[in-house]
Amino acid sequence: MNDAPIGVFDSGIGGLTVVAAIMHALPHERVVYVGDTARVPYGPKSPETVVRYSRQIATWLLEQQVKAIVIACNTATAHALELLQRECPVPVIGVVQPGARAAVRATRNARIGVIGTSGTINSGAYHRAIASLAPDATVFGAACPLFVPLVEEGWVDHPATRLIAETYLHAMRDAHVDTLVLGCTHYPLLAPIIADVVGRDVTLVDSAAETANALRDALQDRAIATSAIEGAPVHRFIATDAPDTFRRVGQRFIGPVLDSVETTVFA
Amino acid sequence: MNDAPIGVFDSGIGGLTVVAAIMHALPHERVVYVGDTARVPYGPKSPETVVRYSRQIATWLLEQQVKAIVIACNTATAHALELLQRECPVPVIGVVQPGARAAVRATRNARIGVIGTSGTINSGAYHRAIASLAPDATVFGAACPLFVPLVEEGWVDHPATRLIAETYLHAMRDAHVDTLVLGCTHYPLLAPIIADVVGRDVTLVDSAAETANALRDALQDRAIATSAIEGAPVHRFIATDAPDTFRRVGQRFIGPVLDSVETTVFA
Repeated sequence: MNDAPIGVFDSGIGGLTVVAAIMHALPHERVVYVGDTARVPYGPKSPETVVRYSRQIATWLLEQQVKAIVIACNTATAHALELLQRECPVPVIGVVQPGARAAVRATRNARIGVIGTSGTINSGAYHRAIASLAPDATVFGAACPLFVPLVEEGWVDHPATRLIAETYLHAMRDAHVDTLVLGCTHYPLLAPIIADVVGRDVTLVDSAAETANALRDALQDRAIATSAIEGAPVHRFIATDAPDTFRRVGQRFIGPVLDSVETTVFA
Repeated sequence: MNDAPIGVFDSGIGGLTVVAAIMHALPHERVVYVGDTARVPYGPKSPETVVRYSRQIATWLLEQQVKAIVIACNTATAHALELLQRECPVPVIGVVQPGARAAVRATRNARIGVIGTSGTINSGAYHRAIASLAPDATVFGAACPLFVPLVEEGWVDHPATRLIAETYLHAMRDAHVDTLVLGCTHYPLLAPIIADVVGRDVTLVDSAAETANALRDALQDRAIATSAIEGAPVHRFIATDAPDTFRRVGQRFIGPVLDSVETTVFA
């Protein structure tokens, strides 16, 4: 038993979808969440820069005595997971491996699409993760750089969003994928439009629930799950910029549990 | 006479439009340009964070012995100009005042539109600058957060871009502005679509040329223009991330003079 909190981080607000899944799967665990809103987005930035930012945040989370770290950001997972697993004294869990596992389980024709930021797609992280689980699967990747700003603008059902989705996703339709990994924590908010464009028969995979399961397994394997507590656990939310916007938009993701936001500065 | 270089900075690559104007207006001056690609964009970030970033870059430029600083970024000008003017021992020139001056000169009906990032529009910097020059003018502002990612994606003539421009700009059309300030250094690349949407009779104001003129005046007033030199001056370009992308995309803005890019890290 270990009542220390779980550290979770993302480039901004999207990782809260993973926090929601953790709260659901592990209702006794406390979460310390860092959203790096001062340097968002990570998607178009270089691996070296994303590694530097991820390492700063992981160091800070370890100072908060977390017992595990969840990288709730596909780009940071793609670039920094292995390094943080080597460097950190606690288990580090990313979103790519769980997403790949869910996709392999879902596909029937072994044709899997992955959409994400330029950083995630160019890293090849999903291709490798899926190949290691299902060597016969064919993986089709597409970077969708405008999806994050569209979600942040709140245009989840604007006609322009549909037009952009058609431009990004027509190759997925032509490739006859039967499963599409939403390889960015912002994308679940565009799921209705994405489903319309690729076809309702394509299974959309969101790695949040699967990541929470991977965390639960890691805690159980090491016997560091928290003891049952009285009342609801108290979570902490930290943004590196604009905490009011973070709270307002973040409540769309996880509701009123996000009632106060701290700030910190890395640099 | 003073042969020290001119420091120019922006959140990323857009400020190169101002560098091009400086090279044209002041062909003997050397430029040291910093694009903060590791933390781009500034538009949605808080004034405090944009001030912190701007101050770090200005400090670095002063260490390079620049004789003047041009803030080639509307958001950074809106939030940090006055502070940097107080703190720096050299003249500091922003893009807002020159853009406002050009707009006031261009308008015939005293109805001026300004488009920019959320940070620029919410700051009210253009409203104040225009009011100080033309108290009777009416100013209409509109934030266009998706324009920067659209330009960075290279979608300057995509049908989705037109649809988004129509959403952002229909209020400008209804307001019967006869002059529209492109209050973000990325926007000149969208000028053809913007002109189509607001009407070809609306004058689009790009502050780059006017900013270069303001710099020339500042150098002349203080007698710190450079002496005539033999051959072309040697400029320096510094990006805080992804120098290869910076060079490739930046050459679209200023051509082959951008032949090598250094990197530095603030933090």
